[in-house]
Amino acid sequence: MTSSYGTTLRLTLFGESHGPAVGCVLDAPPPGLPVDLGAAARHMARRAPGQAGPWSTARHEADLPEILSGLFEGRTTGTPLAAIVRNADTRSSDYAALLRAPRPGHGDLTGRIRYAGANDPRGGGHFSARVTAALAFAGALALQWLAARGIVVRARVAEIAGVADPSPVDPLGLFSDLSAKPLAAISDEAAAAMSAAIAAARADGDSVGGVVEVRAAGLPAGLGAPFFDRVETRLGAMLLSLPAVRGIEFGDGFACARRRGSENNDRPTPSPDGSPARIRRATNRAGGAEGGITTGLPVVARLAFKPTPSIAREQTTVDPETNAEVPLRVPGRHDPCVVPRAVPLVESAAAFALLDLLLASRATSLP
Amino acid sequence: MTSSYGTTLRLTLFGESHGPAVGCVLDAPPPGLPVDLGAAARHMARRAPGQAGPWSTARHEADLPEILSGLFEGRTTGTPLAAIVRNADTRSSDYAALLRAPRPGHGDLTGRIRYAGANDPRGGGHFSARVTAALAFAGALALQWLAARGIVVRARVAEIAGVADPSPVDPLGLFSDLSAKPLAAISDEAAAAMSAAIAAARADGDSVGGVVEVRAAGLPAGLGAPFFDRVETRLGAMLLSLPAVRGIEFGDGFACARRRGSENNDRPTPSPDGSPARIRRATNRAGGAEGGITTGLPVVARLAFKPTPSIAREQTTVDPETNAEVPLRVPGRHDPCVVPRAVPLVESAAAFALLDLLLASRATSLP
Amino acid sequence: MTSSYGTTLRLTLFGESHGPAVGCVLDAPPPGLPVDLGAAARHMARRAPGQAGPWSTARHEADLPEILSGLFEGRTTGTPLAAIVRNADTRSSDYAALLRAPRPGHGDLTGRIRYAGANDPRGGGHFSARVTAALAFAGALALQWLAARGIVVRARVAEIAGVADPSPVDPLGLFSDLSAKPLAAISDEAAAAMSAAIAAARADGDSVGGVVEVRAAGLPAGLGAPFFDRVETRLGAMLLSLPAVRGIEFGDGFACARRRGSENNDRPTPSPDGSPARIRRATNRAGGAEGGITTGLPVVARLAFKPTPSIAREQTTVDPETNAEVPLRVPGRHDPCVVPRAVPLVESAAAFALLDLLLASRATSLP
Amino acid sequence: MTSSYGTTLRLTLFGESHGPAVGCVLDAPPPGLPVDLGAAARHMARRAPGQAGPWSTARHEADLPEILSGLFEGRTTGTPLAAIVRNADTRSSDYAALLRAPRPGHGDLTGRIRYAGANDPRGGGHFSARVTAALAFAGALALQWLAARGIVVRARVAEIAGVADPSPVDPLGLFSDLSAKPLAAISDEAAAAMSAAIAAARADGDSVGGVVEVRAAGLPAGLGAPFFDRVETRLGAMLLSLPAVRGIEFGDGFACARRRGSENNDRPTPSPDGSPARIRRATNRAGGAEGGITTGLPVVARLAFKPTPSIAREQTTVDPETNAEVPLRVPGRHDPCVVPRAVPLVESAAAFALLDLLLASRATSLP
Repeated sequence: MTSSYGTTLRLTLFGESHGPAVGCVLDAPPPGLPVDLGAAARHMARRAPGQAGPWSTARHEADLPEILSGLFEGRTTGTPLAAIVRNADTRSSDYAALLRAPRPGHGDLTGRIRYAGANDPRGGGHFSARVTAALAFAGALALQWLAARGIVVRARVAEIAGVADPSPVDPLGLFSDLSAKPLAAISDEAAAAMSAAIAAARADGDSVGGVVEVRAAGLPAGLGAPFFDRVETRLGAMLLSLPAVRGIEFGDGFACARRRGSENNDRPTPSPDGSPARIRRATNRAGGAEGGITTGLPVVARLAFKPTPSIAREQTTVDPETNAEVPLRVPGRHDPCVVPRAVPLVESAAAFALLDLLLASRATSLP
Repeated sequence: MTSSYGTTLRLTLFGESHGPAVGCVLDAPPPGLPVDLGAAARHMARRAPGQAGPWSTARHEADLPEILSGLFEGRTTGTPLAAIVRNADTRSSDYAALLRAPRPGHGDLTGRIRYAGANDPRGGGHFSARVTAALAFAGALALQWLAARGIVVRARVAEIAGVADPSPVDPLGLFSDLSAKPLAAISDEAAAAMSAAIAAARADGDSVGGVVEVRAAGLPAGLGAPFFDRVETRLGAMLLSLPAVRGIEFGDGFACARRRGSENNDRPTPSPDGSPARIRRATNRAGGAEGGITTGLPVVARLAFKPTPSIAREQTTVDPETNAEVPLRVPGRHDPCVVPRAVPLVESAAAFALLDLLLASRATSLP
Repeated sequence: MTSSYGTTLRLTLFGESHGPAVGCVLDAPPPGLPVDLGAAARHMARRAPGQAGPWSTARHEADLPEILSGLFEGRTTGTPLAAIVRNADTRSSDYAALLRAPRPGHGDLTGRIRYAGANDPRGGGHFSARVTAALAFAGALALQWLAARGIVVRARVAEIAGVADPSPVDPLGLFSDLSAKPLAAISDEAAAAMSAAIAAARADGDSVGGVVEVRAAGLPAGLGAPFFDRVETRLGAMLLSLPAVRGIEFGDGFACARRRGSENNDRPTPSPDGSPARIRRATNRAGGAEGGITTGLPVVARLAFKPTPSIAREQTTVDPETNAEVPLRVPGRHDPCVVPRAVPLVESAAAFALLDLLLASRATSLP
Repeated sequence: MTSSYGTTLRLTLFGESHGPAVGCVLDAPPPGLPVDLGAAARHMARRAPGQAGPWSTARHEADLPEILSGLFEGRTTGTPLAAIVRNADTRSSDYAALLRAPRPGHGDLTGRIRYAGANDPRGGGHFSARVTAALAFAGALALQWLAARGIVVRARVAEIAGVADPSPVDPLGLFSDLSAKPLAAISDEAAAAMSAAIAAARADGDSVGGVVEVRAAGLPAGLGAPFFDRVETRLGAMLLSLPAVRGIEFGDGFACARRRGSENNDRPTPSPDGSPARIRRATNRAGGAEGGITTGLPVVARLAFKPTPSIAREQTTVDPETNAEVPLRVPGRHDPCVVPRAVPLVESAAAFALLDLLLASRATSLP
C-alpha cells in the first residue's frame, strides 16, 4: 500500500501521466453528503495547466472528472466514491529520450531503482504531478463538506523567488477568498513582482520556488492526540506527500526556535460563552494546535516548494545504461514555477486530511 | 488508534507521566535480531533528565527498561516485543493546581476538551515527554539493527537560542559520533555559547528553543514511493509527532524555495561500480530523496523545537471552571531547553521510521 | 474504510450494480509482474452470468476489464493498478418497487438503515454481486502470479441442495483443473444431480444453496502468525466477505469437533530433502495450517453458501414507509443457485488473500 | 504487525507462556468509561486453569491484571490502556525436549520455520493459550462497556465430544447467564454427559473437541458494510484467531446450504414503534445480519474447536534436527478439552470485535 492516505476516510490515488486516466477512490464518505460537481470542476481548474500567466505551460487539461461510483442523485451513497480524469493531449515522444537521460531532481533515477525498471517512464508515470488532479478532486469534495460545517480552508502564495506577500493576516482569522486571482497572493503588488520573477526565470530557461501558506478556520477544539495522531502529524503526512514540497512548519514554525518561551506561548483568554471548549488565545503562534490537538483557532501551516527541476537550460546527468555523463535539455513544456497552481492543491490536501481527522474524532465516544 | 506508528513494524506507545509505567510494543520485529540492552540503556540515558548541564532538571530517571516479551536468549523472537519503564520520583502534588490553571503552550486545555476531562492530569499524563522514554528505547533497537547493516543515524544540535553550530558537514557524508558530548554540537565553541544562552534563559525564569539536524547514511537507493509513502512522508509523520516540534525540512528545505532550479538540482555523477543503483549526486540539496525515494545519499532533515512552554516566570491563563483569567507560576522542575535531550530521541524516532520503511520495501517483490 | 482488504497488497472495490462501472484498485503489486489479460477475461467469464446451465440468468455481461493504470507493456509498473468493468444491460425499472418492498435476506433493509437512505437502491447498489466482477479480476491476476511460483488455487462445488460431490481427493494434493466444466464438480454424476436440483428449484420459483471447497497447493511452510495474522484469519476475512457465505471451515473443520485428539492430529513424516521446512504430515485434517501457520500441505477451506434470497415465488415483507406487511414477488432475473458461479470467485478471493500473505511474509526479515 | 486486531479500537497482544508476562494494549478506548476491575478478574477466572472439573489442568493462574496505563480514578483516560498478567508457576524443564520432538497439531514445527528458530519454545511461547488471558481481559472491558449500552454477549457450550446441548433457545433472544456454571451448557444433563466424555478421554490419555455458540443481543441495526467490513468478516477475523478454532458459521450456517430460499429467508415483521430501524424478522436464520449489516436481531455464531492436540498417549513425530521419526509423550499438564474454558474467551473476543465495530460506525456521519 503506497498511494493511500487516511484512517477513517481512505483516499487511494492511481494513474500515470500518459496512461488512460488518473483517478481516486474515497473509501468511503458518510452517506447523504451533497456533491457540487460544477464547483469541484472550478476548483480543479485552478490547479490545471493552461492558465493565464507566465508560470503555466501551454498544455490544456479539461480535467473534468467522471464519477464511477458512490454518487446517487447528487449525494454520496456512503459506499466507495471513485472518479477518474481521462488523459489527453500527451506527447509521449517528448519523453522517450529521458530513459537514457534521467532528469536531475525528478524521480526518474530513483523510480527506476524502486520499480526495477518496470514503472511507466512516459511523463514521469505515477510520479507525475498529473496524478494530483485526482487529489484536487477528492479535496474539492472535502472542501465542500467542511464548508457546510463552517470550516473554511484557504491557501495563498506567501512567497515566490524570495518575493514575499507582505500582507498582514489576522492571526486569529482568515484572509479573504483569493480563488478568482490569477496568482493567489493577497497583495497585488507582490503578485506582480512574483509574476515578474517567474517570467525572468522562464526567460533564462530556469525556474523558481516558493512558499504556500494554508489556514483552516472553524475547526472545533479537541481534534487530534498527543502522539502519532497529532494534527501536525496528520496534516504533515498529507502535505509532505505533495510533489516538490521540501518542508513544512506549523504556526510560527522555525521562527519559534529562536524565541524564548515567554515570547512564544499563546496566552489563553476567556471563552466567549463560558464553555471551556471555546477558551481562546490572545495570539496564534502555535498555529491552532497545542499538545497535538486543535485549540479552535485557525490551523496554520507553511509549505516550502522547490523550484521546478525540469528546466530548459542544459544540464548534465548520467545515462544509467552506460554510466556516462551526458548533456540534457529537458524536452516538453514545464511550468517555471509550481507554486501558483499548488495553491488549490494545498487547499485540497489540507481539507482532505482535516475531514479524515474530523471523522476519526467521531469514533472517540460511544452512543 | 492514536499512539501507534508504522506499517510493517508497528510501534505502540503507552503510559502516563505519573502512572505505573510508560512502555511500548513493537509488533513485531524480524526474528533473530540481537538486542544489546546495555547499549540501549546508554542511548536512553542521553535522553533522560538529570544530566550535567544547565538544560536539565534535577529529576533522576533510571529509565532501565524491563522487557516483557519478544526476547529470548538475547534475540528477538519475531513475536511482539513489549518493554516498560517504571515511573518513580514523581511529585503529584506539584501538578494538582494545574487543573484550574492550564499551562499555556501545553496540552492541558486541549487535552481536557479532547478527552472530556477524563485524561490523567498529573504531569501531563500521556502528553508528557516522559512517554518518549519508550520511544527512545524502541529507537535504540532500531539504531542497533540498522547499524548492523551499515546504516547509521546521527543527530546534532544545529541551533539553540539563535546560536548556530557553524561546523561544515560533508553533504554526502556524516558527522562524527557526538554521543559522548554533553551538548551534541560539533563545535565546542558553539556548544558553550548555546549552554550560556540556556543558562541565561533559566536565570530569567524563561526558556529557549532550537533546531536539531538528523542524518541517516548508508540507506540503499530505492526506498519510498511517489505519494503517501514518500521517505519525507514517513519520516515526517514520525518526527512531527515528537513533542515541541513545530516544523521539519528535508535537505535544504525552506532555502530551496528561494533558489532557481539550476541552483537546486543535484547533478548525477557516475556510479562507482557501474550499477545504476549506485549513481551518485555531486551535491545533496535534496536530502537524500528524489520523487519521494531514497537516492542512496544521506537522508537529512532539520526539526524546529519550540522553547519549553513551562517557564518559571509568571504567566496568565484561564481557569476553565470559572472562565476567569488567573496568574500562573508553573510549579515543578522543567528543562529550560528541550533540544539537547531531544537529540537521541530524534535519532531514535528517525531510525524507527527508516527501519519500518526498509522492512516495508522487502514486500515489493515476490520470491 | 469499508470495501478494502489486505495489509501489504491492498484491494479496494468500488461500484454499484446500475452505476457507470464497477472496479478495483490494487495498491500496489510488485513491479514487473506479467499480466495475461486474456486469461483474466476467461477466468472472469466463468463468474459472469449468461452461462449455459439452469443456475444462471439470461443477462449477459461482457465483463471485459479496462485497465486504467499500473500496467505498462504487459507488466505491472509497481504503482496502483486500477481496472473497471462498465455496466450495461441493466433494467432499472425492475427494481423501482423494491424501495417499498425490501427483499428478505438481502441488504435492502439493513443498507437503508446503514446508509441513512442514501445508498443506490438500483439492483442492490454496492451490495450487488455485480461488484464481485472486480474481485474476480483482481483474483485472476493473483492466480497468475501465484501459479508462476508453483502455487495453484482451485475450487470445486462440494455440494448443492444436499447433493454432495463424493469424489475422493488426495488430502495432500489437489484435484484436476475443472474450469472447463459447466458445473465444477469432480463427479459428472454429481454435477448432473446438482443441476437437476437447481432446475427443480427454479421450476418451483425457489432457490438452493451449497458448499464450495477451495484448495491451495504449493504454498511454502511458515506463512502466518499465531494470532490475528493466522492463515485462517486472513483467508476467513476475505472469504466471509463474499455475498451469501454463511460459514467457513478449515481442513476437517466442524468434523474435528467430534473427534478425539489422537484421531485428529496429523502425524509428521520426514522431510524428503531433510530440511525442516519440508517436513510433511501423513494426513491433512488441519487443512494446511498448524498454529495459524502454513505447514506446506494444501490449505483447504469449505464455504457454505445460502440459497439465493431473491426467489420468484411470493413472499411477505414490510414497507418501511408504512410499516405494513406487503406481498412481494421479486422482479428481475436471479440465479436459482449462486454456487456454480461462485467457484471462480472463491478461487479469486483465496488467491488474493494468499498473495497478500505471501508478500507480507517477505517483510519479516531484513537484508 | 501480526498480533493486532481492530480498526478504530486497536488491540495488541504480547507475551509468551514462560516469559515475564502476557499483556495487551488497547489503543485507545473512548475517555471516561468506567472499569470494574473486580468484574474483569471474575470474568478472567472463568478462563483460567485450575477450575473444578475434569477439563482443566492443576496449574493455578491468579491472572490478576496489572493496569499500566490508561486508567485514572477508575475510568478510561482515552489514551492507550495497557495491562499485563505476570507469569508464574511455569515449569520450563517440561518443555525442553519438545525442541527435538515437536508436538503434532501445535505450532512447534510451523513456528520454528516461521520464526527461523528464534521464537521462544518454552510452553509454546507466543503461540500459548496463555496469551489469551490478555484477550480475556480486553474483552472483559468490552463486555462491561457494551452491557452499559444494553448489548449483552453470552456464549455457551453447544457441543462437546458429540454431546449436544439440546436446550431450545429463542432465536430472537438470548439464553440466561451461565457464568456461574462449571460447564456453561444450558442443560445440566448435557453438561454432565459432556463432563463424563471429557473424563473418559482423559482416562484414555486423549482429548475431545466441541462447539461454542455465541450470541450478542441488543445491537442496533445498521452496523457493518457490504464487503470487507461485514459483521461476519469482523467477527470472523477475531474468532478465527482463537487457538484451536477450525470453523465458524453465522446464524444457521452450513445448514442454510441445504435449504431452499423460501425456507431460509427471514420474513420481515413490522417495527414495534414504526421506525424502519426497528423492523424485525419472524425468524433469525441469518444470525442477525443481512448484506453484512446488523438487523437488530441477535448476532449468532458457532465455533468449532478441535480436540486438544497435546495428549498423554504416545504419538510419533519428526525430530527436525535428524529428520528421524521419534516417539513423543507430551509432558506437562494439558486440558483434555479446551471448550469449557473457551466460553468466556469467545465472549471476550466477540465483545471486543463488536465494540470496535460500534465505534467505527460512529465515524460514518459528520457533526
